[in-house]
Order: sequence, then C-alpha cells, then structure tokens
Amino acid sequence: MEEERHSLTRRRLLASAGVAGVGIGLGSAGYVVGRESAEDETHLDETVDFHGTRQGGIETPAQDRLHFAAFDLTIETADELRDLLREWSQAAAEMTEGRMVGTENNDLLAPPDDTGETVGLRPASLTVTFGLGPDVFEKDGRDRYGLHSKRPRALRQIDPLPSDVLDPTRSGGDLCVQACSDDPQVAFHAVRNLARLGRGAVVMRWSQLGFGRTSSTTRSQATPRNLMGFKDGTKNLRAEDTEAMSEFVWLGEGDDVPWMADGTYMVTRRIRMLIEIWDRSPLLDQEDTIGRQKYSGAPLGEKDEFDPLDLGARKNGKPVIPADAHVRLASSEANSGTEILRRGYSFTDGVVEELGELDAGLFFICFQKNPKTQFEAIQRRLGTFDALNEYIKHTSSAVFAVPPGASQGGYVGEGLFA
Amino acid sequence: MEEERHSLTRRRLLASAGVAGVGIGLGSAGYVVGRESAEDETHLDETVDFHGTRQGGIETPAQDRLHFAAFDLTIETADELRDLLREWSQAAAEMTEGRMVGTENNDLLAPPDDTGETVGLRPASLTVTFGLGPDVFEKDGRDRYGLHSKRPRALRQIDPLPSDVLDPTRSGGDLCVQACSDDPQVAFHAVRNLARLGRGAVVMRWSQLGFGRTSSTTRSQATPRNLMGFKDGTKNLRAEDTEAMSEFVWLGEGDDVPWMADGTYMVTRRIRMLIEIWDRSPLLDQEDTIGRQKYSGAPLGEKDEFDPLDLGARKNGKPVIPADAHVRLASSEANSGTEILRRGYSFTDGVVEELGELDAGLFFICFQKNPKTQFEAIQRRLGTFDALNEYIKHTSSAVFAVPPGASQGGYVGEGLFA
Repeated sequence: MEEERHSLTRRRLLASAGVAGVGIGLGSAGYVVGRESAEDETHLDETVDFHGTRQGGIETPAQDRLHFAAFDLTIETADELRDLLREWSQAAAEMTEGRMVGTENNDLLAPPDDTGETVGLRPASLTVTFGLGPDVFEKDGRDRYGLHSKRPRALRQIDPLPSDVLDPTRSGGDLCVQACSDDPQVAFHAVRNLARLGRGAVVMRWSQLGFGRTSSTTRSQATPRNLMGFKDGTKNLRAEDTEAMSEFVWLGEGDDVPWMADGTYMVTRRIRMLIEIWDRSPLLDQEDTIGRQKYSGAPLGEKDEFDPLDLGARKNGKPVIPADAHVRLASSEANSGTEILRRGYSFTDGVVEELGELDAGLFFICFQKNPKTQFEAIQRRLGTFDALNEYIKHTSSAVFAVPPGASQGGYVGEGLFA
Repeated sequence: MEEERHSLTRRRLLASAGVAGVGIGLGSAGYVVGRESAEDETHLDETVDFHGTRQGGIETPAQDRLHFAAFDLTIETADELRDLLREWSQAAAEMTEGRMVGTENNDLLAPPDDTGETVGLRPASLTVTFGLGPDVFEKDGRDRYGLHSKRPRALRQIDPLPSDVLDPTRSGGDLCVQACSDDPQVAFHAVRNLARLGRGAVVMRWSQLGFGRTSSTTRSQATPRNLMGFKDGTKNLRAEDTEAMSEFVWLGEGDDVPWMADGTYMVTRRIRMLIEIWDRSPLLDQEDTIGRQKYSGAPLGEKDEFDPLDLGARKNGKPVIPADAHVRLASSEANSGTEILRRGYSFTDGVVEELGELDAGLFFICFQKNPKTQFEAIQRRLGTFDALNEYIKHTSSAVFAVPPGASQGGYVGEGLFA
C-alpha cells in the first residue's frame, strides 16, 4: 500500500504539472507545484526569474504580500556561510519557479525536503531577496569569517536617528530574506523553508509580515494607500527610469567594492503609526502634515495626484505646502537632490498590550547606493523637523548589503568568495 | 482654496462611485469607496449583505483574509451597550457595502469619520460578524448590565482542556469582531474603524490576523492547505447542506433563549504549530498523524480526497487509519455523531523570541449550537488522544454567542434589549 501511495502521489503531482502554463518550468530535480485546475489562469501564475544580473524584489513591481526575516549566523567559517548561501539560492530558485524545494518529497520514511503548504498554489510572482548585515564582516571588533577585506564599503550600522524608539530584538541581523509574493502562503513558505534549510547555521532573529494592494486580474497601477489613509509612493522612483535607478539605487563598477556591482543597499524601518492620535486629527491637519490632499493625493494647492510639488507656492504670505510637511522634507529638493527607492508594506501585529491600541503601521524598506548619504541623511532631516513625527515611531532598524543576482548555477553572494 | 479642495474631493469620490458596479449601493449618507477604474471588474467587487436573518461570515464562503479582534467593555450600563451595538452595526453595514463610515469625511476642520485607507479599494466581500462573551452577562458573580436573564443558555466559559497552554492576554473578551475579506486592508479597516467608534466603550484586548487561500478571478473550490502542508477542511460541514447546518450550527426556535434563534456560538482557538518538529518528521509519520495522504488529501488507504473515511479498514491486523489519527478522533463517528462548522485561518506572528522559531499555526474558528457538547467534547477527546498533540499547542481560547443578523435599520444584538 505504501508503494501505491507513493506512486499515486507522484502521478498526481505530475498530472498537476501538466496543466501548469505561463512561466512554470518542470525541472528534473523536483515537481512543479502547479495549480489544480486550468480554468483560471491569472497573474498568480506569473513567475519572476530568480537568476539575473540583479536580484529580484527590488525593481520588481511590488507584489501584494511580504514576509521578511532577519537571521543571525551561528556558524564559524566562511565555507559554511558559502554553503548556506548556495543552498538558499538553489531553494529560492526552485520556489520562484513554483517548484517544491529539494529532490525528495515522496519518500515515506524521510521528512520531505519541502514543507508542502504550497502544493496546489501558483508561483504568485515570488521573489526572494538576500542581504548581508554589517556584522558578517566585523562584530565586536572581530573579523568573524575572514571576510573583512571584502566588506561592502557603504555597509555600516545605521546611526541613532532622531525619534528612534528601537526595539533591539526586532532590529539588525546578519542575513535577511525578503520574500514577496501575491500569495501570503507562498511568501511564508519561502521564509519557512529557508529557515529550515538554515538550521544549525542561522537562528531567526525577527520576522515581519506585510500587506499592500490586493491585485485582481491585472496589477492595478493606482498608488496604494497607507494606514494613515493617504496615497503613499506617488513620487517614488520608477523602475522604468533607468537613469535615476543607476544614479540612486544600483551600484556600478567602481561605486563600491568590485563584487557588489549590480548590487545595492537595503534599509528596513518598522514605523509604528499612532493611529488613535492620527484619527483624532482634523482633515486639514492631516493634509498639512503630509502636504497632500487625502483623497486625491494631489499636492496641496494642486488638482491631480501627479501634479508636480510646487514647494515655492505661497498663499496669503504662507507656503501652500507647510515648512514641516512630510512631502517637502522628504523631497529630492530638500535633500540635495538625492532619492531612494521605497518598497514598503503595511503591517498589523495585534495589540500594544499596555495601551489596548492596534500595533500597526508601515514596514518601510528602501534601496539605495549608500545608506549614509541617502536614507540616513533624509531620515535625520525628517526625524528632526517632519510634522509627521507626532504620529509615528520608528521601532526597528536594519541595514543590509544586497549583492548582485545569481547566474544560473551560481548563488547570491558568490563574489564574496571569489 | 479649502472650499475648492473640499468640492473637488467630493466630486472625485462621486465620480469614482459612478463606475462602481456589481452589488455596490450608493447611499445618501456616505460615499461609495468604489474603485478607481472600471477595467478590472472581479470578485473584489462583490459584496455580502450585512443585513439578513443570520449574520454573515459564518456560512459565507471563506474569504481570503481575516482580522479578528476581541474587546473588553468599559461601560456601565445596558443602554451604553445597546448604543455601541447599534453604532457598530450601522458602520459595519456601510463598510460591507463598500462605503466610507459615517457622514462627514470632507470637513477640513474635523477628523474624518472614516480613516480613509480603503478609498479606492473594492468591498472585497467584507463580512463583519459580532459576538458576545460570557462576561457580558455575569462577571465575578456580578450581573454587570442587568442582562443575566437574557443570557444565551449555552454561553459558558470553555473549561480547561487537555494540552491547553493558554495565554490569558490573548484569550476571552466581552465582545468580538470577526472581519473577513479578500483584501487584508479592507478587513483591517473594519476592525480599526469599529475600535475607533468604540473608544470610551471598549478597549481592544487582543487581535489576530489570518490568511487563507488567495483567490484570483474565481474563488477556487480546492481545499486549502494548512501550514502543516495538509489539506484542511475536506470533511467540513457545507453551507449548502442546510439540514446539517440546522442540526449542528444554527439555533432554531426553542433551542436556546428566544432572542438567539438564527444565532449560533463561536469558539476561537489559536493553535500554534511546532513546525520545526513537524518538519523533521518522516512523511509516513505525518500522514499517520493526520490519517490522510499529504499531497492528494485522500484518507489513508484511499485514492481520492473525497473518498469516505473507512475507519474500520484494517491491513496486516492493524487499522489503516491509526487509532490516534487526527481525522479519526475528529470524525463525527468518534464524537457521537456531532459536528461543527470550521472557518479557521492560518497565521504567522513573527518569532518566538526564546526559541528563534516561527510563531505560526492555525487560528481555529468554529460555529455550533452548543460549545460544551460540540467543540468541548470533541477537543477533550482530541486533546487527550490525538497524535497531533505532539506538534501543536493551543495558545488562546475564547467563546462568544453570535446573535442573529440585523434587519435593515436594526442592529446585531437587538433581541437582547427587547
């Protein structure tokens, strides 16, 4: 009977693979997860290639859901780190293709390589983005893995910033995994299976779920609203603007250590919104705080969401967009022309016990060439002057070097060991 | 300028309402949230009527996302409780129709009635289901609101059960709100706005996010998998089976106190899965623990997911479905013929700090006519004998009486004050 079950299961999985269409490859090493009926082919069938010059999940149009995890390394040697990164890359490639992790999922006498909760689900545009924290290269003054000479030049801890209220147990980390997908179970599955593969090499330090827009048949182009009820991302960098992406996000040859070319840096900040206080503010105060109209998203004094910010506009002797408005202080103009690529998600993590208030806000993620001169410079200004500070708290902080993408058969971080 | 912004905003909202189709009503009291373009009409446009004989969110096909919240009452009188339930029902009706809460959302000098984060989002089949905990009727031996004579007969605290490891800060509660929607932001918005309306009357005690299947154009009929990788819900009661629903779920006349007719009882249990341990178990052990095949979902010894459970089948002198298998002990046959309607969601709440393990599992919700003779009886058997106990912990528990639905202009719980 067990043999029968074994082959039956395998046949079913292959049958399921048979109907899988768009962008789903059937590798010899595993079974396509596939979908169980062919009738509703949608954006959930889409895949994002794990391999490429640059890692996915950065320029990729933001998927609906996030599962982010930071890990601390418990290993002793660079070789073990290399093995982990290789194994993680292999598994990430399998999962982004919509396949199960590993080669052995039908042996009744062994634990399956894959945990199984995505069997029958679609790839849902999964991306898995890996990053390396500063402590990988030096911790407590020690070069833990003999990699100090390879340290990405701009990889430094984020300095304390005004209005930080950081929880150290939710900050930092040696490695990060950013899993984004249109299906939360697919994103969860990625983090879980990588954590599992990493047993003995890493311990999960913290993790964060996030949600954004909900796609239906097509990915809506409307700017999503954050939990303050405002459109968020109107002025964000666009992946199509390759010039700006080269200027502000992607490291070119000579920008940093050679192996980081086509990489970037990620900063994460868990920004709790004090929504009870926000919700008691008059609409005028909310709009003056942000510098935009709540419903249309237009800059104050303008008509349309995408009308340019006129920071010089005055009315009755006062600036139309107040001096301490968030959009003014976060603007390129106020920051010596610099920009960052934002890719955050909303979160809700239950109740702040002592207050009976919802613990909710924005899990802010941004990418840039240099966290010090980009994120930190902008946030130092915001943290000091931004009218929004009355309504938010930064409760976690982390920074990671994001290596270039892996080639077919290669792995993320390979340049570190060359 | 402010007047101009005011009317502009209003015009935009009405314009947005103009393209809203399927099942979206435009009430004079508020603005339809609507969608911003007419091009992708999908299941996200669907609405579930808040009004009706029975509350939504019970028989309603499970939406993709859950935001559940439990509240404690801080008010002194039954009149205040009635006012709260009336206000909550009104707001829930507005939100399920895809409208903003309240009448005033454009006055610049006042806080908007609605928090705004669903403007531009679709109704996404939102349901809001209200329940009343035992403490409403008697707490510490005191009849807090003079409602003791109206107490639903089967509303008693859940007794301690084998293998409970309950966190009291995540258990119980005077009132509950179960918000389900295909869009997590719509579910969050519902809980947040009800919490806001309840300020001064309630304090949030705990809340829980959950996720299930991810719908695309059509709601898939495939049984979703839980985080153990197994199909979960194959043998669940079906809403279409009205006879079974009457027998096990919906209170009829004479089943309980008269005002609860067409109501039911809800039990919630936060079931943490010890996934690290589970993931190290051989496939055979996993399947023997559940009593089903992992990939196909078929009962052990059968071929198809929906093949009947043959609890008497034996092979080589042993039962094919082990004596301690979950499906056997949870079956109707093992429980004197009783059943419950399950409607749970998977959850992930970050990391268990001391262990570095993912805090993940099933937020179990069930509905029944009598929690003592249904959920409790089943769970006492499961908690004692179920092979699954090695891999799970029940970390929270709550029970609520779920009153019948509200009529147009009425409110949930009205019968309590008649």
